[in-house]
Amino acid sequence: MKSKSELIKFEEGISLESGDNLSSFELMIETYGDLNDSKTNAVLICHAFSGNHHVAGKNPKGEIGWWDEIVGPNKAIDTNKYFVVCCNNLGGCSGSSGPSSINPTTGKIYGKDFPIVSVKDWVNSQNMLTERLGIPRWLFVVGGSLGGMQALEWSIAYPEKILKAGIFAAAAKSSTQNIAMNEVGRESIRKDPNFNNGDYIELGVKPKNGLKTARMLGHITYLSEENMDLRFGRKFQDSDSKVDGKVDFEVENYLQYKGEKFTENFDANSYILMTKAMDGYDASKNFKNLDEALSSVSSELLIVGFDSDWLYPPERGKEIQLAAMNNNIRSSYITLDGRQGHDSFLFASEKYEEIIQDFVGS
Amino acid sequence: MKSKSELIKFEEGISLESGDNLSSFELMIETYGDLNDSKTNAVLICHAFSGNHHVAGKNPKGEIGWWDEIVGPNKAIDTNKYFVVCCNNLGGCSGSSGPSSINPTTGKIYGKDFPIVSVKDWVNSQNMLTERLGIPRWLFVVGGSLGGMQALEWSIAYPEKILKAGIFAAAAKSSTQNIAMNEVGRESIRKDPNFNNGDYIELGVKPKNGLKTARMLGHITYLSEENMDLRFGRKFQDSDSKVDGKVDFEVENYLQYKGEKFTENFDANSYILMTKAMDGYDASKNFKNLDEALSSVSSELLIVGFDSDWLYPPERGKEIQLAAMNNNIRSSYITLDGRQGHDSFLFASEKYEEIIQDFVGS
Repeated sequence: MKSKSELIKFEEGISLESGDNLSSFELMIETYGDLNDSKTNAVLICHAFSGNHHVAGKNPKGEIGWWDEIVGPNKAIDTNKYFVVCCNNLGGCSGSSGPSSINPTTGKIYGKDFPIVSVKDWVNSQNMLTERLGIPRWLFVVGGSLGGMQALEWSIAYPEKILKAGIFAAAAKSSTQNIAMNEVGRESIRKDPNFNNGDYIELGVKPKNGLKTARMLGHITYLSEENMDLRFGRKFQDSDSKVDGKVDFEVENYLQYKGEKFTENFDANSYILMTKAMDGYDASKNFKNLDEALSSVSSELLIVGFDSDWLYPPERGKEIQLAAMNNNIRSSYITLDGRQGHDSFLFASEKYEEIIQDFVGS
Repeated sequence: MKSKSELIKFEEGISLESGDNLSSFELMIETYGDLNDSKTNAVLICHAFSGNHHVAGKNPKGEIGWWDEIVGPNKAIDTNKYFVVCCNNLGGCSGSSGPSSINPTTGKIYGKDFPIVSVKDWVNSQNMLTERLGIPRWLFVVGGSLGGMQALEWSIAYPEKILKAGIFAAAAKSSTQNIAMNEVGRESIRKDPNFNNGDYIELGVKPKNGLKTARMLGHITYLSEENMDLRFGRKFQDSDSKVDGKVDFEVENYLQYKGEKFTENFDANSYILMTKAMDGYDASKNFKNLDEALSSVSSELLIVGFDSDWLYPPERGKEIQLAAMNNNIRSSYITLDGRQGHDSFLFASEKYEEIIQDFVGS
């Protein structure tokens, strides 16, 4: 598979929804396949909360992309046919401008001074990327979870620039419980003594403990209760492979391991920023309701929910579908079996692949 | 209402399920009403995770008891009729021996050296209390949540000493997800730099930040998603009443406030101990299955689940009911409407009160 990573600089800067602005910024992107001569085969993939631009294949570090089961040669999103683009979102920590980058105005790391970024800002910055890449219109903008929110926002904000949108395991807004869970994670980070109000990198420390706790909680929301029960049940962790002496059950060990691992590569300020963007998203914020928000949409929508997802359960997808129907938008909603809870959107299944393939290719 | 608090000392000590033992221990109890001459009107109330012996009425500090809606003169558990007893559980932090007490052997605060205590140990210590009070048999042993686990264990362990058991919003064992949630809370406490591996009191500090985060998460599990949505929705917190400048939404402010408040009175080691007891409970642990575990039960059971409870949902109560039926135990199960999620067991409603009253009084 032909793939390419590139850091793209936007000297023109960007005005953000909060009123703040970045005088310049960079987006780290990865592309797969080739743009055809008529420029009609471009697919934009929007990543979820802890994802990045590395969607498919192996990168030089040997890491497999986060959606490798779906994206690649002859896969549901076929890189032999489509020119696939993904960028690390603004505010992230995988190469794009974010809290751990150097602030070009001061020459110092942004830290707590990186502005608040919203889903709308991401879509606006991705639109700037679209222009830079010379893509007149995306054949398909797609994402799961927070990525699905971006796909929805794309179809609302730039209807003329998107032909089809894929909104998977997502919602038109975060629920009260979603916000509550994220606030617990943020609290845990903020109260880590290494956090230093967000300016920790310059001090040579990282709020790893707080970030670990936040991620452990995150994992509970990504998995379904049933899946957890099947995988771990009430099995005791054998003492040889305990990551921590305080652990009794396998599920505790799993969370400890996953939480710890996450802190090796993720930035705590980005964690706070991304969860704030997620909590803050409400497609109908500047409209009377979701029906009105979708009134400008001209793209075709594919909305997928997963039965075991309790973070953004099928009902959230159906709300979008209902608003689409009220606007006579060409739209399909389907609930798929997914053993992995919210994470189901990441994994290939025959039905899921077929639905995506048919929708993009039709 | 006649009520009395008393600290009862057990010089004989207790052997614990873990193999450890306490050479002596104390239980702080509160009683309401009078034991009748035939000693047939005694009711034992077992408290939930963060409860204590103060069940009903106002204590000298002006605090209303945690089950005041249900227990009192002419209430569902009528203190004019019954002699009601509740003790702060062993390992707690409201007067009974626990991690924040003085270890009589060393003269120092127990801290991390307080042994692990189980639901079975609580029931055994309550049985010692039963003997001390000269009560031959409880008319009714009842509790919600972790308290319901104790009521269930009473009916298994001391069938001849209990006539009726009330098991509300409880389960015969914690689920994988229950354990996972508790582990996040414990992790947050352990990684608070003030925790000092559990020996913080002697250093004059408290792991308040970790305990606060743990409690914030706890609150999410006690409330239902629907209840949170109705109460807070996506409403923004007005800036005058923000408890923390980082807060955007009302629900965040609520969790911050509740979490902070909890740390004023609760002990972090007790938090860990209580959640470990909850996670560790499995009524069928020493049996082939739950049916066999209940084979010794001779008391009548009242099992109540609440429809909005997602911590110990109705299905968990029905499992107990099924095992009871398989053993021909006189048992009733009912799912009640409860807007408060798991916390519903704390609040009076006409149906709930009537069911309890009829069951105890019959």
